[in-house]
Amino acid sequence: MAPSPSPIATFVPVAPDSHFSIHNLPYGVFSSRSDATPRPGVAIGEQVLDLRAIAAAGLFTGPLLRDSDCFHQTSLNRFMAMGRAAWKETRGTVQKLLSADEPALRDNTDLRKKAFFPLNEVKMELPAVIGDYTDFFSSKHHALNCGKIFRGVDALQDNWLHVPIAYHGRSSSIVTSGHPITRPCGQVAPAAGSSSPAFKPSSLLDFELEMAMFVGPGNELGTQIPVESAYDHIFGLVLMNDWSARDIQRWEAIPLGPFLGKSFATTISPWIVTLEALEPFICNPPAQDPPPLPYLKEPQGKSYDIALEVTIKPDGDPKGSTICRSNFKHLYWTLGQQLAHHTVNGCNLRPGDLLASGTISGPEQGSLGCLLEQSWGGREQVALENGGSRKFLEDGDEVVISGHCKGDGYLVGFGTCSGKLEPPRCSC
Amino acid sequence: MAPSPSPIATFVPVAPDSHFSIHNLPYGVFSSRSDATPRPGVAIGEQVLDLRAIAAAGLFTGPLLRDSDCFHQTSLNRFMAMGRAAWKETRGTVQKLLSADEPALRDNTDLRKKAFFPLNEVKMELPAVIGDYTDFFSSKHHALNCGKIFRGVDALQDNWLHVPIAYHGRSSSIVTSGHPITRPCGQVAPAAGSSSPAFKPSSLLDFELEMAMFVGPGNELGTQIPVESAYDHIFGLVLMNDWSARDIQRWEAIPLGPFLGKSFATTISPWIVTLEALEPFICNPPAQDPPPLPYLKEPQGKSYDIALEVTIKPDGDPKGSTICRSNFKHLYWTLGQQLAHHTVNGCNLRPGDLLASGTISGPEQGSLGCLLEQSWGGREQVALENGGSRKFLEDGDEVVISGHCKGDGYLVGFGTCSGKLEPPRCSC
Ligand SMILES: [Ca+2]
Ligand SMILES: [Ca+2]
Ligand SMILES: [Mg+2]
Ligand SMILES: [Mg+2]
Ligand code: NI
Repeated sequence: MAPSPSPIATFVPVAPDSHFSIHNLPYGVFSSRSDATPRPGVAIGEQVLDLRAIAAAGLFTGPLLRDSDCFHQTSLNRFMAMGRAAWKETRGTVQKLLSADEPALRDNTDLRKKAFFPLNEVKMELPAVIGDYTDFFSSKHHALNCGKIFRGVDALQDNWLHVPIAYHGRSSSIVTSGHPITRPCGQVAPAAGSSSPAFKPSSLLDFELEMAMFVGPGNELGTQIPVESAYDHIFGLVLMNDWSARDIQRWEAIPLGPFLGKSFATTISPWIVTLEALEPFICNPPAQDPPPLPYLKEPQGKSYDIALEVTIKPDGDPKGSTICRSNFKHLYWTLGQQLAHHTVNGCNLRPGDLLASGTISGPEQGSLGCLLEQSWGGREQVALENGGSRKFLEDGDEVVISGHCKGDGYLVGFGTCSGKLEPPRCSC
Repeated sequence: MAPSPSPIATFVPVAPDSHFSIHNLPYGVFSSRSDATPRPGVAIGEQVLDLRAIAAAGLFTGPLLRDSDCFHQTSLNRFMAMGRAAWKETRGTVQKLLSADEPALRDNTDLRKKAFFPLNEVKMELPAVIGDYTDFFSSKHHALNCGKIFRGVDALQDNWLHVPIAYHGRSSSIVTSGHPITRPCGQVAPAAGSSSPAFKPSSLLDFELEMAMFVGPGNELGTQIPVESAYDHIFGLVLMNDWSARDIQRWEAIPLGPFLGKSFATTISPWIVTLEALEPFICNPPAQDPPPLPYLKEPQGKSYDIALEVTIKPDGDPKGSTICRSNFKHLYWTLGQQLAHHTVNGCNLRPGDLLASGTISGPEQGSLGCLLEQSWGGREQVALENGGSRKFLEDGDEVVISGHCKGDGYLVGFGTCSGKLEPPRCSC
């Protein structure tokens, strides 16, 4: 059980199992029926607090936020760029405004009408303009399983325990939870006996359970962010589904890595949970042996105890089957190491960049973070509760990722990251 | 010799060997000492024509440009999104305004003072906000040489003749010509006899001679751009140097491809030469055998006859040595095939996205587009004219790429794409 932060009562109704307790206060960008302009908000219980409305009412009175127009933007990039001191000031202000014994918002009926929107009535937008998106490969279990499945080798690649391996992903096709996913078409390897590859809808469509960090302040090109200060550059985390077409990926990926097998869609959850909110859930990462090179050596490595689940809901089965229960803490490389590694060559990060973890697989069968692993490369059926089974996803399947941290009587949750698979649109 | 377009005389002085003839009219974004706001311009001879000033003077009178604010932007993205009809209209207007017998600009001293800037006095900015940057691998000579050097195999990978192979690159570290390049530090493979990788400045720093296209109108996520209409989505081309740290690249790239070995910097030339200007230089691409899959099959494949050169200028040797003479037409996969392939899985392109060709190597030693190939993996010295030699780049080396098409009495050129290598800034 995580240590309890000082209890705060809020005047907003929050159910005990709500992901969006007063201890959370995640940031997102939303639009409403009454106003289609995207603007920053904070989720609390079943409500969204409109930060633009709060700023317009002059309630951000702290020295860093007072004169800022960061909440009058259509994305969080400007707020992300302001850094931890501004984030702390904002969190303090919002927590105070929402608290039960603070009248400023509670007793201002007019402002409450303008500043609160029911969560289930708003449209969530991408929280930031994502300049670059990077996907790491930081679960040792996942890396080992991929080696066994693809190469029949029970060993990591030579570099894996030294390098937090990553590749550049496609930022244009990142969408928020709920966006339908079209089954992609593409080239796959020649069938046995044929010399020509086939062009067809992917028949090995998969999810990947991941989480991803949004970058706060960036760094100048040619400079490094040392691992000691890496966390000052991390705004917060979201859930992510790195949809993957295994047949397309396998045929194209040698020698330059994944491309069209990934770039057709990536889904993130719309609410960014800040590192401040996650502090009570810090835990030790796995021991690293061999010890990492000095530039990756952390005074005190830290991970986060975030319970994760993946549920597949076939068409017409709204309950679905939870086929994976994993945890962020299974990751071998930490957030700080990923970020420090990313900049060690002088590569510049920008506010709003997204760095994903890679598939978060744990040690047990039930904690494997993608169907490729769960079906062991398509050799085994994964049973569903409705009597069906899957090796890979079928059209109409909805994949729902959820994640939360359990505090003493409250949750700090991420909501859900979902997407429903639609049939291919191409005519092949 | 390319067919001559109808000759146009301009009142602006243009030397016969100028890259920026009236037949070219490339687009860039510049700022001046008098006005630091970046704005679109066109290069002509030794001058930049300020398109914002021309628009403000009401001289874009065509139906598509008349009411547009595209030249009041700090990037070309909005103009790129408008499509070929708007590009043609603009080109017609600019060509007319610059022609010798058109008084509107020629005789307006006041406007000429506001609208012309000496090329050597302006600061060139990135021409577009580059949402995503992709790097292809489209020279068969380069792919074959990499196979021989890295794997000792005289054969392409199984997929190469079927798939226009590509990987996602880093867009944040794309800079324009002239920006200094810092030698990156990073992990390299363990030395013989050691079990631990080293962390150090790259000692195998290389250039890659490439060209890259800017995307015009994009496509919606989930839809494809057929190869037949691909060229309607291409705005124009620039020169590109994909700086590469071969030792970092080699250690990190398995299994997910290049990452920090590339992401420290990529240089592009600042002037985008449009496909309209390149039309007289269309030529046949290499024959493709086996024939590509139907979605890559072009009614009439086309390449461009663009002569390319790479000159290395060691510190204190301003003349330098031209060590590579290649040509865009050596590329196996065409621009149209690259773009169609990129979207065949439904991946969305956005105006301003950059798609690079990959290293443009020709068949002869002197046309190999990087030092890795020229020195055959560091086994041979590449002679310089100053008596020195190189296997890879040394601190202080400036790498200058230039490219042009030769018309009948005029050039359509790209200017240069240069960068000087500075010592590492890290303390390792
Ligand atoms: Ca992934
Ligand atoms: Ca390249
Ligand atoms: Mg993806
Ligand atoms: Mg590069
Ligand atoms: Ni199809």
